[in-house]
Amino acid sequence: MQILKNRIIQDGVAVSTEILKVDSFLNHQVDVTLFDLIGAEFRTRFDDIAKNVDKILTIEASGIAVAAFTAKYFNSVPVVFAKKDKPTTMTDGYYFAEVMSFTKRAMTAIRVDKKFLKTGDRCLIIDDFLAHGQAALGLVHIAKDADAEILGAGIVIEKEFQGGGDKLREKGIRVESLAVVEKIENGEIFFKA
Amino acid sequence: MQILKNRIIQDGVAVSTEILKVDSFLNHQVDVTLFDLIGAEFRTRFDDIAKNVDKILTIEASGIAVAAFTAKYFNSVPVVFAKKDKPTTMTDGYYFAEVMSFTKRAMTAIRVDKKFLKTGDRCLIIDDFLAHGQAALGLVHIAKDADAEILGAGIVIEKEFQGGGDKLREKGIRVESLAVVEKIENGEIFFKA
Repeated sequence: MQILKNRIIQDGVAVSTEILKVDSFLNHQVDVTLFDLIGAEFRTRFDDIAKNVDKILTIEASGIAVAAFTAKYFNSVPVVFAKKDKPTTMTDGYYFAEVMSFTKRAMTAIRVDKKFLKTGDRCLIIDDFLAHGQAALGLVHIAKDADAEILGAGIVIEKEFQGGGDKLREKGIRVESLAVVEKIENGEIFFKA
Repeated sequence: MQILKNRIIQDGVAVSTEILKVDSFLNHQVDVTLFDLIGAEFRTRFDDIAKNVDKILTIEASGIAVAAFTAKYFNSVPVVFAKKDKPTTMTDGYYFAEVMSFTKRAMTAIRVDKKFLKTGDRCLIIDDFLAHGQAALGLVHIAKDADAEILGAGIVIEKEFQGGGDKLREKGIRVESLAVVEKIENGEIFFKA
């Protein structure tokens, strides 16, 4: 998605060879005009399965806005976001996965209330980043526990060199990433052609 | 907003006299069709100041989607969401407030990167809930630190009996709440007329 790559080049900051900072438009400050275009682009990429999507699945916090704008292009199906802490109101049982955040160097538990993920639900995962794949694999784990089906994963920025995309594809999951970063070197961001 | 009140009556759960659970459409599973109507309603309520709004300010996680859909109705201004944990990439200085969550019985630090809130920025706060007012007051504190201005606060559900609305209004902040809950008693939800 060229407009996204241009924006990453313009406003993204290559903090290190591992970390790309895009907080000015993606995950701290949010550009809703871009998010709307991103939602439309996910629809184009997954158009062949769009009518089968029952639910969009993501993780708080920065996945939420992308997922919500994307849902509009998938017949406004419900968005379910996995929660990172256990609300005192989540009392009826939940699906659970442990997720390692390499950026934060910490394990996080993610939870989805059993009410919102049912046997046979066909889910599209949407997230802002795919790096080591931990968050997405956590969602896959939760969907499996719920006997739900993952139709694919739509990712805004995939850092290919961190291997998360490969891990998902090895599990037979179709991954559509709008910008694929091949490497970050000397403060420069290289996209896969 | 009648359609919202109807939905709260239909799908909300009065967990106790203090806690109203609306996770099936507002803060765990998200109904984007409703969120779009909510955004339009905030525009109607704040129409007189809409052209002055430079930024929409909220807090992760459940405020994000409401704020993002609302921004579309305010000339697609940037949405800035305060973060609850310090990202390793937030290296350039940030505004900070401590927020007590009564539901979680814990203090949380919220942060906004200094890059995204500037002197004179005219902000509209948008959030899903206003209870004791801690989250909103935290944002007000941060805006004050940044010499930014708060034009108002748009709230999806205000639990009036917990006093957060009064605290904001005492500070001279205009609060527009789409559904005002007066009390919760014997599992029943009573709205302010």
